[in-house]
Amino acid sequence: MEKTSTDTLPLTMISSEKQETVCIFGTGDFGRSLGLKMLQCGYSIVFGSRNPGMSSLLPSGAEVLSYSEAAQKSDIIILTVHREHYDFLTHLTEVLNGKILVDVSNNLKINQYLESNAEYLAQLLPGAHVVKAFNTISAWALQSGALDASRQVFVCGNDRKAKQRVMDIVRTLGLTPLDKGSLMAAKEIENYPLQLFPMWKFPFCLSAVLCVFFFFYCVIRDVVYPYVYERKDNTFRLAISIPNHIFPNTALTLLALVYLPGVLAAILQLYRGTKYRRFPDWLDHWMLCRKQLGLVALGFAFLHVLYTLVIPIRYYVRWLMNNRTVVQAIAKKENPFIISTAWLSDSYLALGILGFFLFVLLGITSLPSVSNMVNWREFRFVQSKLGYLTLILCTAHTLVYGGRRFLDPSTLKWYLPSAYVIALIIPCTLLVVKFILILPCIDKPLTRIRQGWERNPKFLESALNGKTDL
Amino acid sequence: MEKTSTDTLPLTMISSEKQETVCIFGTGDFGRSLGLKMLQCGYSIVFGSRNPGMSSLLPSGAEVLSYSEAAQKSDIIILTVHREHYDFLTHLTEVLNGKILVDVSNNLKINQYLESNAEYLAQLLPGAHVVKAFNTISAWALQSGALDASRQVFVCGNDRKAKQRVMDIVRTLGLTPLDKGSLMAAKEIENYPLQLFPMWKFPFCLSAVLCVFFFFYCVIRDVVYPYVYERKDNTFRLAISIPNHIFPNTALTLLALVYLPGVLAAILQLYRGTKYRRFPDWLDHWMLCRKQLGLVALGFAFLHVLYTLVIPIRYYVRWLMNNRTVVQAIAKKENPFIISTAWLSDSYLALGILGFFLFVLLGITSLPSVSNMVNWREFRFVQSKLGYLTLILCTAHTLVYGGRRFLDPSTLKWYLPSAYVIALIIPCTLLVVKFILILPCIDKPLTRIRQGWERNPKFLESALNGKTDL
Amino acid sequence: MEKTSTDTLPLTMISSEKQETVCIFGTGDFGRSLGLKMLQCGYSIVFGSRNPGMSSLLPSGAEVLSYSEAAQKSDIIILTVHREHYDFLTHLTEVLNGKILVDVSNNLKINQYLESNAEYLAQLLPGAHVVKAFNTISAWALQSGALDASRQVFVCGNDRKAKQRVMDIVRTLGLTPLDKGSLMAAKEIENYPLQLFPMWKFPFCLSAVLCVFFFFYCVIRDVVYPYVYERKDNTFRLAISIPNHIFPNTALTLLALVYLPGVLAAILQLYRGTKYRRFPDWLDHWMLCRKQLGLVALGFAFLHVLYTLVIPIRYYVRWLMNNRTVVQAIAKKENPFIISTAWLSDSYLALGILGFFLFVLLGITSLPSVSNMVNWREFRFVQSKLGYLTLILCTAHTLVYGGRRFLDPSTLKWYLPSAYVIALIIPCTLLVVKFILILPCIDKPLTRIRQGWERNPKFLESALNGKTDL
Repeated sequence: MEKTSTDTLPLTMISSEKQETVCIFGTGDFGRSLGLKMLQCGYSIVFGSRNPGMSSLLPSGAEVLSYSEAAQKSDIIILTVHREHYDFLTHLTEVLNGKILVDVSNNLKINQYLESNAEYLAQLLPGAHVVKAFNTISAWALQSGALDASRQVFVCGNDRKAKQRVMDIVRTLGLTPLDKGSLMAAKEIENYPLQLFPMWKFPFCLSAVLCVFFFFYCVIRDVVYPYVYERKDNTFRLAISIPNHIFPNTALTLLALVYLPGVLAAILQLYRGTKYRRFPDWLDHWMLCRKQLGLVALGFAFLHVLYTLVIPIRYYVRWLMNNRTVVQAIAKKENPFIISTAWLSDSYLALGILGFFLFVLLGITSLPSVSNMVNWREFRFVQSKLGYLTLILCTAHTLVYGGRRFLDPSTLKWYLPSAYVIALIIPCTLLVVKFILILPCIDKPLTRIRQGWERNPKFLESALNGKTDL
Repeated sequence: MEKTSTDTLPLTMISSEKQETVCIFGTGDFGRSLGLKMLQCGYSIVFGSRNPGMSSLLPSGAEVLSYSEAAQKSDIIILTVHREHYDFLTHLTEVLNGKILVDVSNNLKINQYLESNAEYLAQLLPGAHVVKAFNTISAWALQSGALDASRQVFVCGNDRKAKQRVMDIVRTLGLTPLDKGSLMAAKEIENYPLQLFPMWKFPFCLSAVLCVFFFFYCVIRDVVYPYVYERKDNTFRLAISIPNHIFPNTALTLLALVYLPGVLAAILQLYRGTKYRRFPDWLDHWMLCRKQLGLVALGFAFLHVLYTLVIPIRYYVRWLMNNRTVVQAIAKKENPFIISTAWLSDSYLALGILGFFLFVLLGITSLPSVSNMVNWREFRFVQSKLGYLTLILCTAHTLVYGGRRFLDPSTLKWYLPSAYVIALIIPCTLLVVKFILILPCIDKPLTRIRQGWERNPKFLESALNGKTDL
Repeated sequence: MEKTSTDTLPLTMISSEKQETVCIFGTGDFGRSLGLKMLQCGYSIVFGSRNPGMSSLLPSGAEVLSYSEAAQKSDIIILTVHREHYDFLTHLTEVLNGKILVDVSNNLKINQYLESNAEYLAQLLPGAHVVKAFNTISAWALQSGALDASRQVFVCGNDRKAKQRVMDIVRTLGLTPLDKGSLMAAKEIENYPLQLFPMWKFPFCLSAVLCVFFFFYCVIRDVVYPYVYERKDNTFRLAISIPNHIFPNTALTLLALVYLPGVLAAILQLYRGTKYRRFPDWLDHWMLCRKQLGLVALGFAFLHVLYTLVIPIRYYVRWLMNNRTVVQAIAKKENPFIISTAWLSDSYLALGILGFFLFVLLGITSLPSVSNMVNWREFRFVQSKLGYLTLILCTAHTLVYGGRRFLDPSTLKWYLPSAYVIALIIPCTLLVVKFILILPCIDKPLTRIRQGWERNPKFLESALNGKTDL
């Protein structure tokens, strides 16, 4: 639907009785693109420029006047000028009085200035109604109509009517306005387009560290060791076998690290006997990026699944199977069927599949549109109950995968156990601690603390003291 | 973007000229958490309390006064008190006159009271503008900022300006207000946080029943029967082989049950000759949870795919292949290649893959954000045409899987056919009936009925009679 | 939550003090369904009809009057009448003056009339406040409550208060109003429900052409050729082997065609020396449906993955492996292990998995709710950087799959190379051109052009000339 708007609207425009005039200050790339788009959507555009005679490349149909002349033509002025040049507006204080001033500016760095550009503008021109808008939309996107990315335009401002007028323009351009409240939100809105996945940095770094660790660990055990002792060239394992050790182990560790901060927070609350003291900053930050950690873990789990399913197609595996059978056939030896091995093999596969299935479910419920459909009770049920079940299944999958070999001294190479043994340390510890925490004798005081109860109500005392002082 | 709000906003606050004062009645956990959050977002907070001197643990910066003193300080009062204690407000009728009263209360059970808490409040204080809000947000989420779950705050109220004021506060706190209309919506809003997947109960129970049925069916055929007749220990099949019978059969049956109510409704409409009579309640409820039924079926299909793809990695299968080849090699017997078997094997796999692919497409289009992008015509095309195609492909997949063995008496064990034969009953019947329904001679009257035509226009007659009586 | 609204609201209604009266003009199917729904939600309904005595099937509780009588009962009139019959309203000009008139009409074809129905209505009755709404909701959906499809009701109108009143009604019915601005948006809103995936037509046709081409190409090489020369019946390959050639080759070509228009646009901009001239229409349209092209490619890639993973379960493959081993065992010949083959086999699989993984990531970020969470910088990072990485990985996957056989004359059949060689042409060319475009000596002028710089600033000159003329 949105795509056709640029095509159909101009037609409708012709029959439209009165055209609203909007003034744009500044004739740079963004000003021109916005002007063109607004012309196409039926607005009448007046550009305000320092040198109206020198302004070039303006969309045909738009008028170019000096700043003060242009401002008189409309009660909405869109300011497409850098913050550094806002000073010139002080000369226009009278003309701009009572008008709507739309600040579209962005900065080059996050928190570049103490106050946001829009608030600075409002201080410069206390008589104008400053509205922040359009800064999240790129000139290129406006021009090409290729708005596959967010069509959301964050709008904020202190004057409700001014904000409504700007939101109507946003809608007419085929974009979605999002009211972010008063001008206090401007700083956040200005920082927004400069961010590059801020919540994902910690999860990515952490998983990179884990991957590198497991990579070297596996290379030492699977490539260097056989080369040193048997002169065997195992380098081809770098393509599939070793990644298929790195990915599941990283995924399992990351999944455990999703639930670790919750357990640490519970221990801290139990120790402090109150929930009203802030957690240390690192714990706070860790708790806020658990969703991202979990999604990165899901990515690794997905890769592990694909790498595993591809096993029987690999040349190496086919050669191995074929050779083993040929050798057996030549020796005329049949293989006995060992039921316990069948049990182990089937159960570790089944546990892995069920764990992955629940993991995918968790991932789907963390999609914004799905989690918005879900109330708090349902969300906690899914993310906490189902999350722990996933962790239990994945840990069990790894334990059963180890099976009889688990901690068997013969699997040690240079005293190093298999990588999955390392990966099991955090999840197993976590599950044991969590199990202790849900024992009734520990769960009860914790629940009371979380409902606001205090073991050492110091605040209460001080509050009372304060009152008796009065 | 949202995550940083708590960090950046307090800074902005300092330079903010005037702070809005909001009054909170009640100093319980939710009141305190909300107060702290609002303080952080730049509001000035006054708590109203029964015993202002006894109130403890309040966020620093907030004032505590008696109810009537606090109410005078602000024209917005947030009421964080249980419904049972609303009586005390009747003593404050005068102070609260014309003020905005925000009801945040929740109940312990769905439909606990005849009228919603907010409507009860509006009856108690007819002079105040009651707005329902914030009841879907937990105190813990407010405090921790861990609002990965829904940030939506449902707001309703009879006074538009009061509602707008509250929605502005919601936005300033970094949450998303959702206008649900007048106070009549309060009951729904109060019931919302108490629900635990109400639409999923029927699909879950149904699939649980189907799973249990197929489980025992398969255990009898694949574990008990071989044990009784051949003393063979097949218990290891419980891990993968038997689930891989349960899951596809449950998925196919559930998928057919998604489309069955539509067919039943069509038959009922044809029989009654009108669309203006309500369906029986069970049919209504069934029709409303078709989407959930379909998604559960997709879950089972997904598990079936993973269980199937894992087959060649299983120890049992590898042992079987290896042993068969060794035996053949020892006997020096080559296997002939049977083209018809290759055809059957490849086509059941291809049908299954295509069916699963369409099923995943259906699942993706049922994501709220995707189905919102789609108009009614497109939605019906996908869910009806593509849905039936999926059912046809999955049924064909099962039929071809059966192939030559299908209904072969030698596959009967204790007169029981394979599980997939049972699972085919509903889909095959459904497809036959559907095929009959789309025959032109039946489709035409059905379409007319659905466009509002009546075979026996009794209502019309009665309406006319009524008129002639006048 | 939404589902329960119809059940709970009627109860609440009873205690509701005053009922708003809404008038519905027209007693057809949609009028009746809407009236019933509004009655259930607590409104009082008056139907306006040509022959009030003849109107049938109306929901009980609703009143039926003549048009002018009905219109006097309410200040909101919902018009459920076809555009062709709007003339009768001119007789009611006086009664309708100042009232809110809701146009719910749809047309039979896109752009059927020059102006939208709502704008036509506004011209007929300049005194009424026309609001467009409800046209995207079907009568059936209203009645059954089965609103799994979009619950969005697009609303537009020139009078803000009238629009707000209508949006309140929409909310009370449990639907989501979406303000689309002034009545100029009505044409777009009226076209919307008639569309059937307009942006998907080109991608679908293109992929159909590619599929058919690769199908015949593969049939000639893999079925006809062996039949002609060896009288071998390879038809069973039609089920899996040949689709598994068609799908990956189509996917790779489509993926390259997603990025080709961007490269063409860059070349065009470099050649023209400006970004201010429109691209040819075909290029514009191609650029606008890149997302859809990419998603179709992802679908084919997904099918390719499933068809590949299923390989070891196929009867043909099992027979082949078994036979090969038996023959070897009888000949007592062991297979040597070739490390370079292991490397090739493992790396093409690993490249394919990584490429598919990134492809899935791209697909997920193109979900509306996810791309709305992402700012412009992040979106460009994902869609451009990650997109090219995906293309590189998939191209490398295909190149390494070819491996030693690539362009080997012995693989030619009737001078035709394998299908993947054909599929590599576009991606390889594209990657080479893209590589040239990101060389600093070419990237710099391109970046300047995209920031608004012009090589031949003709517009500037003409603008200056224009000014000196004054």
